[in-house]
Amino acid sequence: MSGEPVFRKARRADLPAIVELLADDPINGHRERTGEPLAQGYLHAFEAITADDANILVVGELEGAIIATAQITFIPYLTQQGGKAAIIEAVRVASRLRSHGIGEKLMAHLTALAKARGCVGVQLVTSRPRVDAQRFYARIGFKDSHIGYKRDLR
Amino acid sequence: MSGEPVFRKARRADLPAIVELLADDPINGHRERTGEPLAQGYLHAFEAITADDANILVVGELEGAIIATAQITFIPYLTQQGGKAAIIEAVRVASRLRSHGIGEKLMAHLTALAKARGCVGVQLVTSRPRVDAQRFYARIGFKDSHIGYKRDLR
Repeated sequence: MSGEPVFRKARRADLPAIVELLADDPINGHRERTGEPLAQGYLHAFEAITADDANILVVGELEGAIIATAQITFIPYLTQQGGKAAIIEAVRVASRLRSHGIGEKLMAHLTALAKARGCVGVQLVTSRPRVDAQRFYARIGFKDSHIGYKRDLR
Repeated sequence: MSGEPVFRKARRADLPAIVELLADDPINGHRERTGEPLAQGYLHAFEAITADDANILVVGELEGAIIATAQITFIPYLTQQGGKAAIIEAVRVASRLRSHGIGEKLMAHLTALAKARGCVGVQLVTSRPRVDAQRFYARIGFKDSHIGYKRDLR
């Protein structure tokens, strides 16, 4: 790897590459459908995400390729006397480029976005089998202070 | 306890009672400031929450009193071919009314809201010391499939 990744808001043209990143995941990749034409669900979700100022879909670009992605959502809460929280989800770095510090730079970019919006904190969950991710978040200063629960509605 | 709680969107007039519920919490209650006039932060957060269709601040009312609250946020994601997720936060039931099934009814109401919006799942985190909450979520069918991370930005 040469050069430095640039992080920015995703554009429509990035969408196929983002879906490739989401599919490049041994835990949940099987849920995705790569290849063109993209499933309508991706297009609708992309429109909904980009239409709402509370959501930013981020990509990392390196030498013309999309090599990382994450979504950050800013949520106003009453708790902490009206503190806004940032929720980070769908964090992915291209598997061929892991362990090059890209994830850390991506998280720094997301944290800066949260600070710029006046968030009191950032939070995220990782599924229990993602032990590498858990080590990573601990290393960069996140506390595993919570248990995360999900319930499937389908 | 007699009668059945009714769950509905919070109104401005409910705000002092909601803040009382948030403060009625041994883990994080110390972060709140009850009593009138309410801290400006609560008013601003309430306006931001109610102005955004992606957020619903819910209250439970019983015999004219606000006895429960939670916030649900609907977030569009690319993952799962464009699945919308519901995030539940700031769940509180008045301590004098615990173990009367109110929390379960509140969660059923929130789950119905998530289904009505077409969410593929609901998710939440509880901090590790909240063992009663963890037992509760497991009992009503949530899976503790994730580790939750937070980082304070203040």
